Amino acid sequence: MPEWRRDPVVDRWVAIATERGKRPSDFRCVVHERNDTACPLCAGCEEHTPPEVMAFRRAGTPKDAPGWWVRVVPNKFPAVKIEEGQEVFHRGIYEVREGLGAHEVVVEVPQHVDNLDVQSEKQVAEVLWAWRERSLDLRRDTRFKYIQIFKNYGSTAGASLEHAHSQIIATPMVPAEVRNELEGFHRYARAAGRCIFCDLVAQEAAERERLVIQEKHFLALAPFASRFPFELWIVPTEHQHDFAQIREGQIRELARMLRACLRKLSVLLYDPPYNLVLHTSPVNEPEVEQYHWHLEILPRLTVIAGFELGTGYYINPTPPELAARYLRETEAHFEEMPYRGVG
Amino acid sequence: MPEWRRDPVVDRWVAIATERGKRPSDFRCVVHERNDTACPLCAGCEEHTPPEVMAFRRAGTPKDAPGWWVRVVPNKFPAVKIEEGQEVFHRGIYEVREGLGAHEVVVEVPQHVDNLDVQSEKQVAEVLWAWRERSLDLRRDTRFKYIQIFKNYGSTAGASLEHAHSQIIATPMVPAEVRNELEGFHRYARAAGRCIFCDLVAQEAAERERLVIQEKHFLALAPFASRFPFELWIVPTEHQHDFAQIREGQIRELARMLRACLRKLSVLLYDPPYNLVLHTSPVNEPEVEQYHWHLEILPRLTVIAGFELGTGYYINPTPPELAARYLRETEAHFEEMPYRGVG
Repeated sequence: MPEWRRDPVVDRWVAIATERGKRPSDFRCVVHERNDTACPLCAGCEEHTPPEVMAFRRAGTPKDAPGWWVRVVPNKFPAVKIEEGQEVFHRGIYEVREGLGAHEVVVEVPQHVDNLDVQSEKQVAEVLWAWRERSLDLRRDTRFKYIQIFKNYGSTAGASLEHAHSQIIATPMVPAEVRNELEGFHRYARAAGRCIFCDLVAQEAAERERLVIQEKHFLALAPFASRFPFELWIVPTEHQHDFAQIREGQIRELARMLRACLRKLSVLLYDPPYNLVLHTSPVNEPEVEQYHWHLEILPRLTVIAGFELGTGYYINPTPPELAARYLRETEAHFEEMPYRGVG
Repeated sequence: MPEWRRDPVVDRWVAIATERGKRPSDFRCVVHERNDTACPLCAGCEEHTPPEVMAFRRAGTPKDAPGWWVRVVPNKFPAVKIEEGQEVFHRGIYEVREGLGAHEVVVEVPQHVDNLDVQSEKQVAEVLWAWRERSLDLRRDTRFKYIQIFKNYGSTAGASLEHAHSQIIATPMVPAEVRNELEGFHRYARAAGRCIFCDLVAQEAAERERLVIQEKHFLALAPFASRFPFELWIVPTEHQHDFAQIREGQIRELARMLRACLRKLSVLLYDPPYNLVLHTSPVNEPEVEQYHWHLEILPRLTVIAGFELGTGYYINPTPPELAARYLRETEAHFEEMPYRGVG
C-alpha cells in the first residue's frame, strides 16, 4: 500500500509509492558530458581562479602554484560577496538586504577527475579536513550565521565544472530549512528529554532494515522519509551538533564510509548525478547544541517538479527499505587512484 | 550589487546576482524529445487510461470514447490512492499514515500537441473550468485538506508524457508550503490589517518595473524574490482566497493572460521547460479566507542543487526587473490552432 511518511524532524511528508517500487534498472543510465577543454581547477592552472584562501600543499611551494592536494578558492562568479554590508532596506511590502556572503570552491583533487569515490581514503579525509578548516575560519566573521557546505555532482545535479569540487556558501541568515530542523530538534527534546537523532541512531541500529553501513562513529542509512530514490544519510552515532567538532578518528571513518556510499551508488546506479549536503548547526547563534549534524547524499534520478515545488512534499517511487537492501548488497569495488597528495 | 531578497509571505531568501545578470541568450535552447509512439492521452486511445472521472464532451458521445475536448482521468500510476484510509501509525520516532489521496491527469487537448499556448483562448479557458470543477468535486471528500493543481512541461520539468496535460493531487494534510504561506498572510493581516497580496497588487501596479501584463482582473508580474530566472506570477487584483470562486469573466481574462505569458516565455526562451503551480487556500479547513490565490509559472533553466536543497533558499542569476523588461518587450505571437472543441 502507498504511504505518507513524515520526516521526524521537519514537517515534510513524502508519498512512498510502495507498490510501483522502482528498482535501480528502472532509472536510465545518465551519461555525463566529458569535457576536454582547459579546466580552471587543475593543478597548473592556478592563475585561472581567484587567489586561494587556503590550500593543503607541499611545504615550501608558493601560494597559487602547483604542489597542493586540496585547494580552496573564492568562486569566480559569486552569488554573494564578503565585501557587502548587511544593511536592510524596506520597499513597501518588500525587504532587501545587502548581498553579504562568502562563496568558495573546494577543489578536491589536483588532477582532472570528476568523482571523489575513486580517490584514496586519505584524499577524501583531506577534503573533510578542508571543510572543517573553512567552517572554523569563516565563522570568525561573526556576521555569518550559517555555513552551507555542499557538492553538486553531474550536470543534472547542478555541476557546471567537471573537475571534482565542493562548495561553501556562508550566509548572514540561518536558512529556513535549518531553522525548521532546529525547531524539530527542540520540540522533540522538550517532549522526550532526548535528542531525536540519537534516538534515530538507536532505532535504525536495532531495526536494521534501512541500514547500509554500520561502524563505530557513523551509520549510513536510507532515511525513513527519503525524498529521493536511494537517498542516503550518514549520521554520527554520538551527539555532536557542529560538524567542525569532528575528531581525527571520526574523520578517518567518515572518509571511508562516504567513499563507500558514493561507490555503491556509482556501481548500482551507473554513476548517477547527486547532491551532497552537510547539515550542521548555525554558527554565532545561541541554543544550537540540540542539533545533531549529518551528511545527506541525494541522488538526482527523479525530477523536482510541480507537486514538490507547490507543496514542499515529495513523491518517491523507491521505498527506502528496498534502496537499503540494494545498497547493502552492492559491493563497493574500488579501482583506486594512487594517492598523489604530495606530488 | 548582489542582494538577498526575502519573499514577503514565507521566510525564503533569494540571492539575486544583479551583476552577472543572465540574459535570455545565456540559457541554451532546450530541445524537447519528440515522441512518435502511441500516446495514451490522445482522443481515440481512451482505453489506455483508467475510466474518465470527468470530460467536457459533445452531447450524446459516450464516456471513454472520442468527442471530448478536455478529459480528466485517474493517474494510471498514482502516488496516492483514494481507496486508502487515513489511519496513522507510529513506529518509534517515525509516523506513517495510509496513502490516502487522489491523483488525476487533466488531458488539456484531444489532439497530440505538447503545449497549451498554441491553443485558442477558449480551449485554455476550458482547461481552467476543468481545474475548477475537479477542485469543487474533490473537496466533497472532506478527508482532503488540499488540492494541488500543477503542470509539468518538458522532461527536465518532470513531464513523462508529451501530450499537453496538467495534474491534480489531493492530500489529507495541508502541505508545509501552503501552511507557511497562510501563516505569512495571517502575520501581515495582524500587523497591517490588510491582505499582503492585495497590497502587493497595489505596489506592483504603481511601481510597474516588475509588471508584465496588467488587465482588469489580473496582473502578470515577475515576483520580487523570484527563485527562478523569468519566474512569473499571475495574481487576481481583487481578494479571492479560493481559486474555485473564480467567475466566468475572470476565467476568460485569465485564459488570455496565461496563454500570453506562456507564449512570451516560449518566444523569448526557445520553448523552455516549466512548472505551473496553482497556489490556493486549503479546503475543509477553518480560517483560510486570508489567503489570496495565484498562479506561479516557474521556468526550469537553472538547476535546484545542493545549496537550494540544504537551505531552502535560492540563487537566481536573473533579476526580476530585467526579466520583466524582456518579457514586456516580447510580442506574444500566436500561430493559433483552430478550436477543435466540438470536433
